Amino acid sequence: MPAPLELDADRLLPVEPALRSVARDLYSSIADLPIISPHGHVDPAMLRDDLPFSDPAELFITKDHYVTRLLHAAGVDLASLGAGSAAGADPRSVWRLFAENWQLLAGTASGYWLTHELVTLFGIDVEPSAETADATYDAIAARLSDPAYRPRALFERFGIEVLATTDDPMDDLAVHAALAADDTFRGRVLPTFRPDAYLDPTAAGFADRVERLTASNGTATDDFRGYLAALEARRAHFIAHGAVSADHGVIEPYTVDLTDDEASALYRRAVAGELDAAGAREFRGNMLLRMAGMSARDGLVMTIHPGVYRNHSSATFEGFGPDTGHDIPLTTSYTQNLRPLLEKHGLERGLHVVLFTVDETVYSREIAPLAGFYPSVFIGVPWWFLDAPDAVLRFRASVTETAGFYRGSGFIDDTRAFLSIPARHDMARRLDSAFLARLVGEGRIPLAQAERIAVDLVTTVPRKAFKL
Amino acid sequence: MPAPLELDADRLLPVEPALRSVARDLYSSIADLPIISPHGHVDPAMLRDDLPFSDPAELFITKDHYVTRLLHAAGVDLASLGAGSAAGADPRSVWRLFAENWQLLAGTASGYWLTHELVTLFGIDVEPSAETADATYDAIAARLSDPAYRPRALFERFGIEVLATTDDPMDDLAVHAALAADDTFRGRVLPTFRPDAYLDPTAAGFADRVERLTASNGTATDDFRGYLAALEARRAHFIAHGAVSADHGVIEPYTVDLTDDEASALYRRAVAGELDAAGAREFRGNMLLRMAGMSARDGLVMTIHPGVYRNHSSATFEGFGPDTGHDIPLTTSYTQNLRPLLEKHGLERGLHVVLFTVDETVYSREIAPLAGFYPSVFIGVPWWFLDAPDAVLRFRASVTETAGFYRGSGFIDDTRAFLSIPARHDMARRLDSAFLARLVGEGRIPLAQAERIAVDLVTTVPRKAFKL
Amino acid sequence: MPAPLELDADRLLPVEPALRSVARDLYSSIADLPIISPHGHVDPAMLRDDLPFSDPAELFITKDHYVTRLLHAAGVDLASLGAGSAAGADPRSVWRLFAENWQLLAGTASGYWLTHELVTLFGIDVEPSAETADATYDAIAARLSDPAYRPRALFERFGIEVLATTDDPMDDLAVHAALAADDTFRGRVLPTFRPDAYLDPTAAGFADRVERLTASNGTATDDFRGYLAALEARRAHFIAHGAVSADHGVIEPYTVDLTDDEASALYRRAVAGELDAAGAREFRGNMLLRMAGMSARDGLVMTIHPGVYRNHSSATFEGFGPDTGHDIPLTTSYTQNLRPLLEKHGLERGLHVVLFTVDETVYSREIAPLAGFYPSVFIGVPWWFLDAPDAVLRFRASVTETAGFYRGSGFIDDTRAFLSIPARHDMARRLDSAFLARLVGEGRIPLAQAERIAVDLVTTVPRKAFKL
Repeated sequence: MPAPLELDADRLLPVEPALRSVARDLYSSIADLPIISPHGHVDPAMLRDDLPFSDPAELFITKDHYVTRLLHAAGVDLASLGAGSAAGADPRSVWRLFAENWQLLAGTASGYWLTHELVTLFGIDVEPSAETADATYDAIAARLSDPAYRPRALFERFGIEVLATTDDPMDDLAVHAALAADDTFRGRVLPTFRPDAYLDPTAAGFADRVERLTASNGTATDDFRGYLAALEARRAHFIAHGAVSADHGVIEPYTVDLTDDEASALYRRAVAGELDAAGAREFRGNMLLRMAGMSARDGLVMTIHPGVYRNHSSATFEGFGPDTGHDIPLTTSYTQNLRPLLEKHGLERGLHVVLFTVDETVYSREIAPLAGFYPSVFIGVPWWFLDAPDAVLRFRASVTETAGFYRGSGFIDDTRAFLSIPARHDMARRLDSAFLARLVGEGRIPLAQAERIAVDLVTTVPRKAFKL
Repeated sequence: MPAPLELDADRLLPVEPALRSVARDLYSSIADLPIISPHGHVDPAMLRDDLPFSDPAELFITKDHYVTRLLHAAGVDLASLGAGSAAGADPRSVWRLFAENWQLLAGTASGYWLTHELVTLFGIDVEPSAETADATYDAIAARLSDPAYRPRALFERFGIEVLATTDDPMDDLAVHAALAADDTFRGRVLPTFRPDAYLDPTAAGFADRVERLTASNGTATDDFRGYLAALEARRAHFIAHGAVSADHGVIEPYTVDLTDDEASALYRRAVAGELDAAGAREFRGNMLLRMAGMSARDGLVMTIHPGVYRNHSSATFEGFGPDTGHDIPLTTSYTQNLRPLLEKHGLERGLHVVLFTVDETVYSREIAPLAGFYPSVFIGVPWWFLDAPDAVLRFRASVTETAGFYRGSGFIDDTRAFLSIPARHDMARRLDSAFLARLVGEGRIPLAQAERIAVDLVTTVPRKAFKL
Repeated sequence: MPAPLELDADRLLPVEPALRSVARDLYSSIADLPIISPHGHVDPAMLRDDLPFSDPAELFITKDHYVTRLLHAAGVDLASLGAGSAAGADPRSVWRLFAENWQLLAGTASGYWLTHELVTLFGIDVEPSAETADATYDAIAARLSDPAYRPRALFERFGIEVLATTDDPMDDLAVHAALAADDTFRGRVLPTFRPDAYLDPTAAGFADRVERLTASNGTATDDFRGYLAALEARRAHFIAHGAVSADHGVIEPYTVDLTDDEASALYRRAVAGELDAAGAREFRGNMLLRMAGMSARDGLVMTIHPGVYRNHSSATFEGFGPDTGHDIPLTTSYTQNLRPLLEKHGLERGLHVVLFTVDETVYSREIAPLAGFYPSVFIGVPWWFLDAPDAVLRFRASVTETAGFYRGSGFIDDTRAFLSIPARHDMARRLDSAFLARLVGEGRIPLAQAERIAVDLVTTVPRKAFKL
């Protein structure tokens, strides 16, 4: 008899009976509200084309670096998992490797989400294992040919009200335009302006990229004002296609205010490939500040995702490409790094800056105090490694006492894994209910207030932060 | 029907019934013990004059930057709140802004304390809201004219045994002397020596300030030994008026041991306005160490409150002055920064140094280990942003396993808000009871020991740390 | 009537009844499994000689700097405790000082372990106090003359399967050889290679030490290749005596890849005493990386214990020697510091690197992400100040969601206090049971999986990490 795979109806709710009862009521009032997903990495072409998903391995494993990294850590080769740029791995073999190592995911966020997805979407009722691998593979594969499992049908079934993608500034956004123009698809799919590679002189291909950018707007590559104008033009293009935010994945949230002449001098050296590391840092720091200025003017919400050392293992990067599980967090600090930006734009009404972190120490020390004063600063919910039950509760306990419930971003799934979106939002709703129930149980807020907050956290709060 | 405002008799106690029962018993044994408040910011003139409080807005909002910052973050103008140096805001309008935004405070320490104060002191039984704003304003205002609501009556009603204020070194302490000499007031109100502005060459007006200081003791401004002697003389003046501690609000707890010649050279450049940032840091670091030496000799307990970037928003500072909600924490480190001080004075019996932090990471990593060895080092309880239920429990869980219960400062309210003093001490007592109950429930300490510790934490522990 | 000293059978298990029941079952399934102790500081001569312990003070107090530091912090002189190099303190007087101050240990890990040891090993049933000091001293002393209380009998009674000691690279390991050859002792006692003092040019006596090292292998002191060969030879000697790991206690986990010529140049200056602080850091950082290379080749598991400022109080160090309670943690960072090592060796199958920390912030931010990708990186369980109930649960909650349960080191007692070994492992087993029970109660893992994990955590997990 294989071990059963089950979903506890009260999962993530507090175990203490009185708290569980309160939490269950709170959760049930929000469980089925529409999903607002203002930041993520789903490929919009998937929704345009609406093709069946190819196989269980691609759906759950090869594209999910949360999963492949844990298998890799246990000694499984990335090539045999078909991870990253590896190709040609047999999907069924990949699935077997995953199933045999199921216990490695116990207690992780991925294990939790996968259980949710396997049970609720595919009706799998046995634990993945060597023994059950083939049967579960076949069961999932069989469903994938069902029209109800195509992307648009799932989009509707998931109750997604808004889904934001993440896009290159030079993207023509034709896919988004096609989706918007398609009367047979009612979902709202918004692009997000992600200009990192155009703002960092040390990014591979920077000069070529800004050449294309500036050329698109009719200015010379080394004309700094032309470069700024081209960025503004691309932002306008994104806004015209429904974008509400611009995303910035920087290694540190360093900002610096430079004159146009200073910045222009750095820019010309950057384009010429003559900027040293210190100069590149100044340029990036100034551009982050200038992007805040553009956001204050054109209204795009600015999200900052800093503090990750990307591609820590060169050999893995060379063999399998980026996003293959070896991006490792760093200490992050906002108070001083962000001050030039906030001095210049922090009190402007048009600006919304959402601060994310993979360094938990920042929550109570910096992000909550900043968001507790600046109307422009919003608290990004737990991101990446921290998007997991205990980390989420630590987050709520760290920021709420300083900043309350109304300075947050609302939940953000930040995922490439389309099928995990409901699992992730459901997790967040359960945890918010658990947290609120504890405050009620401890006599810190009345139940009626908790009921209002629970609803606000998935409706008005994300709408306000992301101007939806 | 407006929503009721209520205080749960068991608030902040654990929800699990067995733990709640133990916690309730522990709490009830200490709930009514006198309040020892060895560090805070109440204006002593308020107690000397004993005038009625002016209005609900001034009492609860305009002077409380915990509250105004959250309203500001939500988009309410500080001017319309009468915050800081803003004047002329209509108290009733301010109160309405506060009441309409009551939900912003849900889950914050301020929301918790205000509920306590409104219910226990003013008998308010409806939640603040646009609808109830006028009625609650009137109800509070009516009470303020009652003699029972004058400062001295409240001081007695609150059960305050000792209240320390925070004072400029050049203060003549006439107010404290008047209170001590007043037979009609039996409270003990002690000054605290707060010399920051006289020790930091980068503080505005430093040269003028030390000129007045040294002149008061009959030496030339640029005479370093005279400067030290003047500081010692002012400390003696404070001790003569009952002071037990000197408070140091430094941006970092950096200390450095310099010879008199080295320090004197820095001092002369400081007075002349010629000291650069690096030199100013050395001077401050040396003066912090020298203040420890003075404390070891004259017995004033040294409290260190580091790691806050003051006045983060220049525009707000210029418009509304300091203490208007935009002081933001920084990473803080003690192990290496404080070593020169502890090498020189850390084993001296006369020295007590109480270490506070707004960077929680320091608790288990540095403060508890230091206080677990040096007899001179005491653990400051959670301060400022961390003075809230979850943060306090994190603090206890972070320091107790390394340093036990007897290396702490005892609770410190650190408040300007006189009316919040009982709410804050009550919160601390409930949380200590909750923490102790958990240790009892987990079989880590026997109940009888928990009972002794609960009492010690509000009696012998603060008395020892502050030499009361 | 003196207060009773008791051990709660359910101590450290969750208080909530449903969770307690699950935790109790998990715990009972692992409570009596053999102890694997792959890193610690027990003196192997104690087991070779198998002499009776001398007295209660030496057994519980004078050698335990966790205990003496807390008494010192309360004002008790280290000399009167016979701590460190202090000699001549009357054991009974030391015991009295300890007993009188028992309440100082309430809530600490030491208080918890001592209660366990006094009750389970010595049948003490009254709380230590001035009143009970003599009776408890006599009761313990009486047992010490019983053959059942000799080291080997206790080793067997404790159910220790493997015990690793920590040894100087030049140790001839004759004691280990004698124990291995002794048919009357069946325990497995392994040496551990601890080369810090041979790798750090700033360590006192470095030049003399490497002179002896290189001479032992027949090369000149200033011959860098000879130095490396001698280290390899000593590692081989340790491996021949059963060693499975090499331990590295560095102030920071900084690593740097240097050519042989660069490293050789630094080495010659180090031997000549001419290396400055920056050069010494480079040399240490390069040697840590080279030790990883040796580990990848010879298979010794590499444990890294960084981030402790040793001998913070010079006066105490001069008076009482090292390990006298004033080693204080520092901030630690791995992501960038360890990258050169992992770039060079992180994907090699032979390498196991176990990362410990006394800076809790590293768990979720750096160690779990690294161990969640690199097959060579393992998560060290809480160490030193963090080896205590609440800290252990924080650790589990911080790393599991990212790295699961199978990337850890297994519990490590790291102790000199032989009698505390069962108390420490029992604590770990209770806490793991408590943590797993919570995940079960919250519907995050099924009970059957928790049961397997509980067993694995004390069997396959440490065996894998330490190649046992």
